Amino acid sequence: MYNQTSSNKAVVLLSGGLDSATALAWASKEQGWQCHTVAFDYGQRHRIELEASANVARSLGVQDHRIITVDLAAIGGSALTEDIDVPKDQHHDATIPITYVPARNMIFLSLAAGLAETVGASKIIIGANIVDYSGYPDCRPAFLNSFAKTATLGTKTGSEGSPLEIVAPLLKLDKSEIITLGLKLGLDYGLTRSCYDPHPDGMPCGHCDSCLFRQEGFAKLSKTDPLPYPE
Amino acid sequence: MYNQTSSNKAVVLLSGGLDSATALAWASKEQGWQCHTVAFDYGQRHRIELEASANVARSLGVQDHRIITVDLAAIGGSALTEDIDVPKDQHHDATIPITYVPARNMIFLSLAAGLAETVGASKIIIGANIVDYSGYPDCRPAFLNSFAKTATLGTKTGSEGSPLEIVAPLLKLDKSEIITLGLKLGLDYGLTRSCYDPHPDGMPCGHCDSCLFRQEGFAKLSKTDPLPYPE
Repeated sequence: MYNQTSSNKAVVLLSGGLDSATALAWASKEQGWQCHTVAFDYGQRHRIELEASANVARSLGVQDHRIITVDLAAIGGSALTEDIDVPKDQHHDATIPITYVPARNMIFLSLAAGLAETVGASKIIIGANIVDYSGYPDCRPAFLNSFAKTATLGTKTGSEGSPLEIVAPLLKLDKSEIITLGLKLGLDYGLTRSCYDPHPDGMPCGHCDSCLFRQEGFAKLSKTDPLPYPE
Repeated sequence: MYNQTSSNKAVVLLSGGLDSATALAWASKEQGWQCHTVAFDYGQRHRIELEASANVARSLGVQDHRIITVDLAAIGGSALTEDIDVPKDQHHDATIPITYVPARNMIFLSLAAGLAETVGASKIIIGANIVDYSGYPDCRPAFLNSFAKTATLGTKTGSEGSPLEIVAPLLKLDKSEIITLGLKLGLDYGLTRSCYDPHPDGMPCGHCDSCLFRQEGFAKLSKTDPLPYPE
């Protein structure tokens, strides 16, 4: 039922956004790890990212891509799952933004830790980065390190002597550095989706925090984002 | 959107089993905390526990009882969610049993931590106890303490200075001591369900690990389990 833990296997949190797609490209192409990807259907309003996630996984030759349903709307408290407006045309300040979903990364990493046990992976890859961790406590290194210890104590594999590692390859990179890495690895950013509040046809809004960071990242490199945006 | 954190509010993991029901009775009646209860629809074969959970919450006057759906069957690896036989007429040995669901308590506690943020609770109550923690790594004190630190780092409330506490009031109690506590608090154990593999009509099997521990607990006290069992 359980596979032997292998240092060559990784579970990758793949939201379908720019960051997680780059983290997957890094793990699979640069590190050569056998990647199992996981996306979460958590009641998000930007559900097109679930399709994007599957497309990115396919484009990078992933054999095992899973979507796990977890009803975070039952918890409430976020503009991403509740009927609260997503802020437009402004970056979040130093406080925690309304798009923060309570404990989201802890929940996602816990589910990934369960999956890591059943597939025999010793690593979980997450696209957390410097842009996020000013605002989101569950993207900060102190949290990620603490989570790895907790997951090692709380799982069969970990408690029997094979520590679970949380790898955040983008942690020190800004958006343009992340894009540079992905382009170097041949990642097609046209398959990814970042918008928090896309139009019904899937087109990004171009104005939410996530769209702004993405567009600024491409602009800084004098590159064009392959996604279409409204006029 | 968020409530102020209050030391009087607790989120209680309420599976509908004997342990979690007793933990709720302790938190609500002995401590006088305002309890928000949460049950998880995770693809378990013993789904009758979801009804039991709601009945126990109601009987103890809980105002806010939630069921959160999380598809642990997508992770696999357990007799409780997969088509693997539940062992009968034997207790698990010192190894981790087939009824272990990978990372289950970490996943449930993470979801409870998200809920604690939105309702403004500073404590999560879990019915983990000495019977469990020989077998289940995610019931052990070292894990629970580490989880509390991780959740404090990874949540808005925690990272802003209000630590999240994990309270396991049954940790040192065996099954008969747990039942003694519940009976003292007037808990109706006829509302609870413990069986891993109930009959289609909801009657407990009487032979799984969980049924055996429960029956032995009542027998040791020379009390009768109010649940009906097959002949």
